[in-house]
Amino acid sequence: MENEIAGNENPRRKFLQQTTAASAALALISPLDLISKPINQNTKPMNLPIKARGYAAIDESGILKPFEFERRSLGDDDILIDIKFASICHSDIHQEKGHWGKQIYPQVPGHEIVGIVSAVGKNVTKFKLGDRAGVGCMVDSCMECNSCTHGEEQFCERGQTLFTYGFPTNEEPTGITQGGYSDKIVVRDHFAVHIPEEISFEEAAPLLCAGITTYSPLMKADFKLGDKVGVAGIGGLGHMAVKIAVSKGAEVYAFTTTADKTEDIKSWGAKEVIVVDETFQSMQAYNKVLDYMICTIPYEFNVTPYIMSVKPYGTFTLVGMPINSEITINNLMLSFARVNFNASLIGGIPETQEVIDYCSENGIRPTIEIISAEQINEAWEKVVNKEARYRYVIDAGTF
Amino acid sequence: MENEIAGNENPRRKFLQQTTAASAALALISPLDLISKPINQNTKPMNLPIKARGYAAIDESGILKPFEFERRSLGDDDILIDIKFASICHSDIHQEKGHWGKQIYPQVPGHEIVGIVSAVGKNVTKFKLGDRAGVGCMVDSCMECNSCTHGEEQFCERGQTLFTYGFPTNEEPTGITQGGYSDKIVVRDHFAVHIPEEISFEEAAPLLCAGITTYSPLMKADFKLGDKVGVAGIGGLGHMAVKIAVSKGAEVYAFTTTADKTEDIKSWGAKEVIVVDETFQSMQAYNKVLDYMICTIPYEFNVTPYIMSVKPYGTFTLVGMPINSEITINNLMLSFARVNFNASLIGGIPETQEVIDYCSENGIRPTIEIISAEQINEAWEKVVNKEARYRYVIDAGTF
Repeated sequence: MENEIAGNENPRRKFLQQTTAASAALALISPLDLISKPINQNTKPMNLPIKARGYAAIDESGILKPFEFERRSLGDDDILIDIKFASICHSDIHQEKGHWGKQIYPQVPGHEIVGIVSAVGKNVTKFKLGDRAGVGCMVDSCMECNSCTHGEEQFCERGQTLFTYGFPTNEEPTGITQGGYSDKIVVRDHFAVHIPEEISFEEAAPLLCAGITTYSPLMKADFKLGDKVGVAGIGGLGHMAVKIAVSKGAEVYAFTTTADKTEDIKSWGAKEVIVVDETFQSMQAYNKVLDYMICTIPYEFNVTPYIMSVKPYGTFTLVGMPINSEITINNLMLSFARVNFNASLIGGIPETQEVIDYCSENGIRPTIEIISAEQINEAWEKVVNKEARYRYVIDAGTF
Repeated sequence: MENEIAGNENPRRKFLQQTTAASAALALISPLDLISKPINQNTKPMNLPIKARGYAAIDESGILKPFEFERRSLGDDDILIDIKFASICHSDIHQEKGHWGKQIYPQVPGHEIVGIVSAVGKNVTKFKLGDRAGVGCMVDSCMECNSCTHGEEQFCERGQTLFTYGFPTNEEPTGITQGGYSDKIVVRDHFAVHIPEEISFEEAAPLLCAGITTYSPLMKADFKLGDKVGVAGIGGLGHMAVKIAVSKGAEVYAFTTTADKTEDIKSWGAKEVIVVDETFQSMQAYNKVLDYMICTIPYEFNVTPYIMSVKPYGTFTLVGMPINSEITINNLMLSFARVNFNASLIGGIPETQEVIDYCSENGIRPTIEIISAEQINEAWEKVVNKEARYRYVIDAGTF
């Protein structure tokens, strides 16, 4: 926490560009635990990879194991974060199991990351040592295109959005980005956000994905006070959607297949909780009722009863990402529904800061359960079995 | 054409309601050829079924055969139309082949129907004998619900929209509605539209489905002069979409898999014709180019390259109805595209009149080829093989 690594005169990026052919060799450099050995800031900084430990998937089994690895060294625009908490998103499970495509292993998942800034590159002005910081689903982009310069870095027009884990990059010693189930992370300053003092680290973590992924489309939906907003799938994302929509004055209708979530959901201010049965009988009374619906269901499902619950010319947004990212729609029913079907992908960095500030200031908190690193595998099973209530947050002190 | 059948004091509907159990028996009543034997209007009218002939599917083979059958007798709110032309829609083929579900046979397809009013029920004021009239995709609805009273009869909230062929109804002697590949049709007056003198019958016919199905979403898209409008699939519907969008001032980009349609499409005023190859290479230059896209492709297809050609936050409307009405979308790509995906189903009766009047007045005409009844089966094959240029219109005088 006390160390500031000054930038090298030859920027790391340039160095790596020059040595891409030799990038594999970086992994062979003897690691230096920068944190345990404070550097004299008057000396030339040692621009070496940063040792980290965490939990990684090693294959598609969905079972994680302890893993020691190296992060890239700190560049001039980077910060080093000592991770305090990282929470578990269903996406972690999908990706590590190869549901969205073949993966490179070992791979450390996790894109809901909070901690304390323990080092900053020489160009960094956004953060200082000791700042509370968070990292979400992406860690870099071109920063120059129209999307990147307009706060939509997830849609980098040059295709350079670098997602937080599993994405190939020559800049990381392991050849891919490595996520937040670990003790530290190096990230370009722009892609970290500030965590206000009003919110605990553990409660802030889920906002980095579950929060922004639901907040962004809810804000775009531009619903009015008292509008009927549906939320389908009440897990990590859905429970945040309920809380955010309630706080923004919507009349919230929550659709869940898990009856015993009903009281929780009502306690968050939902107007109605609809327990969805296999034949969708319970949804029939909600035909054309909603002004808007956000759906977080992370697997293929029968879309029709959900879109039919939205008023004609309303919008249905899918933020769940099914296996292979494929969803089949009955086009005839969609035409009867007259509903706009769209999908939303997280949110940009400015909006991520916005949701964190908004939740911090307005007392909106995820419902969480703190676990230790060794409980991760059990927690993943519970997430898949709809037993999470509602976000598992890993204490990074246990890695 | 010279006959007017006065209404019965006991409305046909009520009669049929009372005799639903015996409805099958209606088919046994000896048919009366009303046209060949003018009725003395001073006598009590004979409320008997109307003899018709046409071409019907008799199974899922997609092969039609000559068919003699009975239409329901003329009710107080009905008109009888002597059909002059009926055109061939890809939907006819899909439905008769059972692509959208099991059918009742024999079934006469056809929902692009034009002709001359040859009899009117006693309550009818919308039409008089000799009027030029057209019938599209529906022939009845509840006429009382919010949708029906607001010109969206295709979305009857009581589920009583009666589509023009193949829909079960006790009111028809054959037990189902029978379509326009025939010499006459009885239809509730509200569901027929006026065909202005400015347009020929044969050119008006395709407007009843291909015209309204593309016009309605194009008008809802509310594009501005010079906006870039994409049309995918340049068959019967697509070619009307190009012509209508051009006439409304759009810069039209037409996407077709059939290279030899290029010159035709350009002659209709399209700005560019993109010949789509199997790997979609030719579409890459059109990434995020369009303000709006209407897609008429009537089979399952790779949606991604098409939605990626629409600008973020633009809309993509599918009017083609694939087999089983199912379309699979890559949800991740949809989220990157940020495009609203919707579907549109024909259009209401007032809007159907609007498109016919609009096309009539503005010289917008489908490109057609007139065929005789015995050429129907060959024409169907050509439609499936993308050989239609661009709408086959059957001369009903040949049934």
